[in-house]
Amino acid sequence: MAPTYTMAGGKGPNSYSQHSTYQRALLEVAKEKINEAISTKLDVNSASNRFNIADFGCSTGPNTFLAVQNIIDAVEEKYRKETQKNPDDNIEFQVLFNDHFKNDFNTLFQTLPPTKKYFLAGVPGSFFGRILPRDSIHVGHCSYSLHWLSQVPKGIADRNSPAWNKDIHCTGFSEEVVEAYQDQFKIDMGCFLRARGEELVSGGLLFLLGSCLPDGIKMSETMKGMLLDFMGNCLHDVAKEGLIDQEELDSLNFPIYPAHVAEFKSVIEDSGCFTIEVFERISHANEELPLDPAFLVTSHKITFGGILETRFGKEAMEKTMERIEEKCQDILPQLANAKSGMQYFIVLRKN
Amino acid sequence: MAPTYTMAGGKGPNSYSQHSTYQRALLEVAKEKINEAISTKLDVNSASNRFNIADFGCSTGPNTFLAVQNIIDAVEEKYRKETQKNPDDNIEFQVLFNDHFKNDFNTLFQTLPPTKKYFLAGVPGSFFGRILPRDSIHVGHCSYSLHWLSQVPKGIADRNSPAWNKDIHCTGFSEEVVEAYQDQFKIDMGCFLRARGEELVSGGLLFLLGSCLPDGIKMSETMKGMLLDFMGNCLHDVAKEGLIDQEELDSLNFPIYPAHVAEFKSVIEDSGCFTIEVFERISHANEELPLDPAFLVTSHKITFGGILETRFGKEAMEKTMERIEEKCQDILPQLANAKSGMQYFIVLRKN
Repeated sequence: MAPTYTMAGGKGPNSYSQHSTYQRALLEVAKEKINEAISTKLDVNSASNRFNIADFGCSTGPNTFLAVQNIIDAVEEKYRKETQKNPDDNIEFQVLFNDHFKNDFNTLFQTLPPTKKYFLAGVPGSFFGRILPRDSIHVGHCSYSLHWLSQVPKGIADRNSPAWNKDIHCTGFSEEVVEAYQDQFKIDMGCFLRARGEELVSGGLLFLLGSCLPDGIKMSETMKGMLLDFMGNCLHDVAKEGLIDQEELDSLNFPIYPAHVAEFKSVIEDSGCFTIEVFERISHANEELPLDPAFLVTSHKITFGGILETRFGKEAMEKTMERIEEKCQDILPQLANAKSGMQYFIVLRKN
Repeated sequence: MAPTYTMAGGKGPNSYSQHSTYQRALLEVAKEKINEAISTKLDVNSASNRFNIADFGCSTGPNTFLAVQNIIDAVEEKYRKETQKNPDDNIEFQVLFNDHFKNDFNTLFQTLPPTKKYFLAGVPGSFFGRILPRDSIHVGHCSYSLHWLSQVPKGIADRNSPAWNKDIHCTGFSEEVVEAYQDQFKIDMGCFLRARGEELVSGGLLFLLGSCLPDGIKMSETMKGMLLDFMGNCLHDVAKEGLIDQEELDSLNFPIYPAHVAEFKSVIEDSGCFTIEVFERISHANEELPLDPAFLVTSHKITFGGILETRFGKEAMEKTMERIEEKCQDILPQLANAKSGMQYFIVLRKN
């Protein structure tokens, strides 16, 4: 079984549910765009009284609740305009919340908005494969999930491979490393799209949101890339102190790959299941991470704390976070000069 | 919000997942009967490639996995015989696992059988209301859940009401108490059946299994009733020691009501949604609880431990369990003379 990466569960101070305003900001900006896409590109079949929505990689909430409500509001508005009928009396919405088997579904279910008017279900399983019945979904949504690969690419963690990567992510400087990550992205994204292609009804829409890279920009030139390199340096400090085995650290790689725009487009076109209706850059207020050490430590902890703890133990993880906090000031000038990454908003229409 | 009663979660020594062999024994005996009912009474539409199964009140497994697999095996066998086609190539099964919002779905999802060949989803929510889209389920299943009422009946916990019950359950000796429980059962079972009536497709089957009472037998004359009375006595001992407030204890009532056969039949007929295809007594090897103090303490703890702890605190709960163990020997002769309760196997066909 491939390892699975989930955000920190529960509702505590270091949980994803308490620290997802960055991702939320994108959803807020996307709301209007989703509304427009549903209004102009979705075929709301007024004969059918069932409408199913799936959020792929939903984590624990609350962002997923906002995302699906935005979609429902848009579908209801369109239905009202087109049919002059009240959607409340005519459509039953069902929302399928998907994430890994190890996601904290208990927290998700216990924090559902009390005002929700839809049926719902949690669907555990990897979205790189089929998880829902054929032709069962009218609108799919996937936000800030597709930069996670299904696994660390082959060769990357193998010291004898030409693709061996001693950095902890795909910085963009070694061609062999880049190719290995690209290949894995193509495989994973292909699997994702083929699975959704079977699950979505013909004419259904799939909204993809998240981070990618503008063509020609290397990961290490962006703020997020710099922060990953910086975390790598802090891990090396902790290894020097003896709390992490250097060999182990050298083989650490995160299965993260924010693809370039051209790669993203090409893998969608190759899949043959979807037509690209919209592929655009989208900006939001929290796009540039605040240069605040406390914030940066917390966000590192939520996203990577679990993985580091599993790999190196709690003490080494805590020590790394301390180190990040201590040294953070030093890299602020460098971060201020980072090149911009890119947030994408993609609308795909099922062929 | 009504309080919710869930079995002990997790996988530890005092969890439902480790102590459900009693309920499992009934499923094993029911397997043949379910097979026969599906073979003779279900209309497997060979034109449709989707087959949805819901288990209402699934808890954490593993019994629910066995129950749904039995149903799938039976449907596949029927499909094979009727169409001469391979179901693997033609039918997609989706299983909806339902239980309260507070059920431990994380454990359920992380202990799924690796050999399962169906899509699945967890559906949190009370089965006394609608939880699934209209006409979306072909076979429903509900095992050992319908003796739980949605709430303690009105008046039962009110010292000034004629239905005030100073016992902790419906012993059967006070007419007013019995009526209050009966009324609540009628309301709840009516809600359950009307909701399932909307969710099941026409011709779909609903299997109900569990404990009820033969007509004319009082709860307190059965072993389960005697054990509840015995737990009530032990709680009174702990109250005398000062660990439980006597007033609080006097108002404790479990929302449990194993209906009599005639009541059960009449509420099904009144609902108008279903035809009774089978209503029979079913026997299984574990039907009579073993007269073993350690077993009895563990089963009390799993079923009632959580409720008692919430109500009176951990210490009082533990003390009550100790008391049950100490005094258990004294009631063994009485238990040996108990009248038989009844395990039911019901098949309803959606009109």
